[in-house]
Amino acid sequence: MTDPLRLGIAGLGTVGTGVVKIVQRQAALLQARSGRAVQISAVSARTRDKDRGVRLGGYAWEDDPVALATRDDVDVFVELMGGSDGPAKAATEAALAAGKDVVTANKAMLAVHGQALAETAEAAGQVLRFEAAVAGGIPVVKALTEGLAGNEITRVMGVMNGTCNYILTRMEATGQGYNALFEEADKLGYLEADPNLDVGGIDAGHKLALLASIAFGTQVSFDNVQLEGIQRIEIADIEQARDMGYRIKLLGVAQMTGRGLEQRMQPCLVPADSPLGQLEGGTNMVVLEGDSVEQIVLRGPGAGEGPTASAVMSDVMDIARGIRLATFGQPAAGLQPATPANSAVPAPYYIRTQLFDKPGALAKVATALGESGVSIDRMRQYGHDEPTAPVLFVTHKTTKEALDAAMDGMAQCDVVDGTPVAIRIEAV
Amino acid sequence: MTDPLRLGIAGLGTVGTGVVKIVQRQAALLQARSGRAVQISAVSARTRDKDRGVRLGGYAWEDDPVALATRDDVDVFVELMGGSDGPAKAATEAALAAGKDVVTANKAMLAVHGQALAETAEAAGQVLRFEAAVAGGIPVVKALTEGLAGNEITRVMGVMNGTCNYILTRMEATGQGYNALFEEADKLGYLEADPNLDVGGIDAGHKLALLASIAFGTQVSFDNVQLEGIQRIEIADIEQARDMGYRIKLLGVAQMTGRGLEQRMQPCLVPADSPLGQLEGGTNMVVLEGDSVEQIVLRGPGAGEGPTASAVMSDVMDIARGIRLATFGQPAAGLQPATPANSAVPAPYYIRTQLFDKPGALAKVATALGESGVSIDRMRQYGHDEPTAPVLFVTHKTTKEALDAAMDGMAQCDVVDGTPVAIRIEAV
Repeated sequence: MTDPLRLGIAGLGTVGTGVVKIVQRQAALLQARSGRAVQISAVSARTRDKDRGVRLGGYAWEDDPVALATRDDVDVFVELMGGSDGPAKAATEAALAAGKDVVTANKAMLAVHGQALAETAEAAGQVLRFEAAVAGGIPVVKALTEGLAGNEITRVMGVMNGTCNYILTRMEATGQGYNALFEEADKLGYLEADPNLDVGGIDAGHKLALLASIAFGTQVSFDNVQLEGIQRIEIADIEQARDMGYRIKLLGVAQMTGRGLEQRMQPCLVPADSPLGQLEGGTNMVVLEGDSVEQIVLRGPGAGEGPTASAVMSDVMDIARGIRLATFGQPAAGLQPATPANSAVPAPYYIRTQLFDKPGALAKVATALGESGVSIDRMRQYGHDEPTAPVLFVTHKTTKEALDAAMDGMAQCDVVDGTPVAIRIEAV
Repeated sequence: MTDPLRLGIAGLGTVGTGVVKIVQRQAALLQARSGRAVQISAVSARTRDKDRGVRLGGYAWEDDPVALATRDDVDVFVELMGGSDGPAKAATEAALAAGKDVVTANKAMLAVHGQALAETAEAAGQVLRFEAAVAGGIPVVKALTEGLAGNEITRVMGVMNGTCNYILTRMEATGQGYNALFEEADKLGYLEADPNLDVGGIDAGHKLALLASIAFGTQVSFDNVQLEGIQRIEIADIEQARDMGYRIKLLGVAQMTGRGLEQRMQPCLVPADSPLGQLEGGTNMVVLEGDSVEQIVLRGPGAGEGPTASAVMSDVMDIARGIRLATFGQPAAGLQPATPANSAVPAPYYIRTQLFDKPGALAKVATALGESGVSIDRMRQYGHDEPTAPVLFVTHKTTKEALDAAMDGMAQCDVVDGTPVAIRIEAV
């Protein structure tokens, strides 16, 4: 009989409570599958006296997560507190120093300190795993690290922030603007305490940086993720993109190019009939592309008690089964710093502008595009009551530099009302 | 420096050639990720003198796969010959007896002999893995066995035969009947030597039985898969299902019910706007549902050199990394025989019939349905030039027994022309 695997769980919010429930409810199943009992020795949270709808009486309580992480009766420290620094990092370091394995859902901590923590863990012979940090219940870290281990990864894409996708798809469904849907998401409790983590793309950027490290064998480099949130997306863009056969998603894209590692988290147009284009509400989707596998698409709940706890338990069960992988799929000490690409791979762009309704207006704008080397694939002018006409362009593939020059040129035309909007169209 | 992992590959068709190419092309990547070199020692195939577009000169050649499987310089026997018995099984058994690990893409062999082979492997301390046997490049065995290891699995569904999905979606796109598209698929080389493996649902049934074993901790039981192929699907069904908001898929469903394990591989209607309903052509999709994760959907190429070789390499890389799992996720010796459910979970059904155009015809048919306890959710009668009118019903949830009784009753009505068609509607 193998010894039980003993967990110490720090953080009893939604995810922590979910993990406790699985360990209690599925004890027999976990033992049958791993060959050993999975037990909880001790827990820790900010507030002790709170009804979490789950029995905690049988577990030791620690006020201090560092004390929890270093207990003799803990084999695996399960870090579910969150925050890139502070107690989460201190307790993770203490756990590794004390010879514990660590399972965490903390994308912020790993995006900033993942390289150092992974090196520490691997030097000590411990594992540090983070399935729950990316795309909730979708086992994407495992799919990428292990399932596609024979592939040279060519591109990783994903819609990995359910709140942003909820806001964007609700904007389309209701015809309401960004601010109204932001408030709706806030009321539903979908936003982080700092909403910019969601709508500014930071949370999704953390996840992208973690996947990029695994995919391309480079050190996590969140600082080099080009970040753009969804705040500037107007209902007109959503409706007119739809009219052209696209939908707007906050899309993360990581790919290794001849010019270095490109990591972008930004609103993009994707074809409405693609799997990414069909994604509704808070669901997450990750697209993995490799030289042999071509493309696989993984879809599932990106948050929530059960799904995120399921991902935590995937890591716990790996450890119970003796599966001991390097944090980023290969020894952290050998990971190279990524050279960030200094420009994005060329792509078509969607451009929306308002033109004053006078002779030669369209010619002037088209000239501005042409002079910057941007050629037009499709153009559409809509009927209008106002003195300006909405005009849309879909360009052929162009560099971001040429596009920026064209946008500057357009803005200087005396026929353009306001600032034109450009959104990248990602081939998916 | 860890010793290299040495492969012996039996079978140099599409998949075998693909594996050789990955090992050659990605040698550095495989070594970086697993910490050891992955090499090929020897290969075997039916024909030696054949240009496979790949260098084989550095490898020993064996005419006999059993000899290959037992070579001293082979650590992992990679079985890519196919066939449930014969050389594949003999060589797999010989490899396990000689202390080799085995990686196979052979769904037929495992669906029939998986339990015995897994017991043999585990008793000998060897691993027997089969990621490539199910859904091509999609790492679904890993997702289910490891990624969802903390879940009580509630249902597994999948479109796992690309040829059938190709035929069905081409029928819809072209308006041509089954026979014409069967011939088209044959010309394109999409059909197995015995086409009934594809269109009869056998190949997909093998895959479903393997997933069910992992999902529910039961012995593989292919004999208990209720099998129905796509041969009886008419273009009228595809068009009229579409008109009602559905598409027809050859869908595998496995779920554990109070009455036992239900395993069905049969044409089903699924909502046209669901991920399964949106699946086109030869792509595969597997839907996994668990008590915690809710639902995840995996989509990818179900066949082909690169994708299937990618799946083989996933197992090879697991072994190279020291990941040693039981074939079906828990010790085979402890798996219980599945009690097959004696009836399917109730569901709504689509019924298509032709009624003679005379007074009271619809009433008679509706009475036949009602007398069997089948109630009608939606009904649609189409305009017609012939003496009979096409009439469609969508029923409320009903048992298969009540449905069969209703179909008998309808067939006996003197107002029905020909035999009515019933197809299950699966809630996805």
